[in-house]
Amino acid sequence: MSLNDDNAWLDALAWGPDGLIPAIAQEHGSGSVLMLAWMNREALRLTRETGHAVYWSRSRARLWHKGEESGHQQVVHAIRIDCDADVVLLEVEQRGGIACHTGRHDCFYRALNPAGDWVEIAPVLKDPTAIYQGAQSGI
Amino acid sequence: MSLNDDNAWLDALAWGPDGLIPAIAQEHGSGSVLMLAWMNREALRLTRETGHAVYWSRSRARLWHKGEESGHQQVVHAIRIDCDADVVLLEVEQRGGIACHTGRHDCFYRALNPAGDWVEIAPVLKDPTAIYQGAQSGI
Repeated sequence: MSLNDDNAWLDALAWGPDGLIPAIAQEHGSGSVLMLAWMNREALRLTRETGHAVYWSRSRARLWHKGEESGHQQVVHAIRIDCDADVVLLEVEQRGGIACHTGRHDCFYRALNPAGDWVEIAPVLKDPTAIYQGAQSGI
Repeated sequence: MSLNDDNAWLDALAWGPDGLIPAIAQEHGSGSVLMLAWMNREALRLTRETGHAVYWSRSRARLWHKGEESGHQQVVHAIRIDCDADVVLLEVEQRGGIACHTGRHDCFYRALNPAGDWVEIAPVLKDPTAIYQGAQSGI
């Protein structure tokens, strides 16, 4: 297989003008939508190669190995794309059961109530301070 | 409640520089991720008001009442947002059981196999020609 062939699966995607594509992480088993982040080609290549979700952090402008600080890695069970090849869907096993930096299971913990207010519908499972302190000290 | 108060729930979102935000539609009950589309403020306002998913079509540059041609509307059970308030998650009931314009249940019907090829993993449930001809003739 030539080098070009190796990249064919990446070339098949419709990368945005900024070189990015949205990637949804869905929890294997429960089906919960955990988060949406962004990927560039290298992030997706590394996701396949390592079997762990790697995103492109737009705020930090660098590759972000999910869980690199928190320990909450995402083990990838499947990589899927949509009909327009411009969205990635990862099926993942969420280490620690916490995907969100707020210490919640997933990032979609606010819902609109009938009065038109965003209300929290999911608990904090672990204090974020503990998550990130623990990671830094290797706990 | 003042006009400003009425818009507070929309102002809470971190709209992109193009005025858009990604919106994931997840099937109520099954948990399947059906599709990802885009919304502007008016699309989200109409989604809440009508109880049916309304997106902003980037290709057609206009509001897109999902199912307006196909009849495959999405009845909204819940509207959620993520921790950064820059992604919407809709829990929907998918009319007709078909979300994708290709006639499949959802848009994420291609998966990467170990050899590095994108392979189709879901069947076409209805011929797209029939879906859109039917809609145009009012069937």
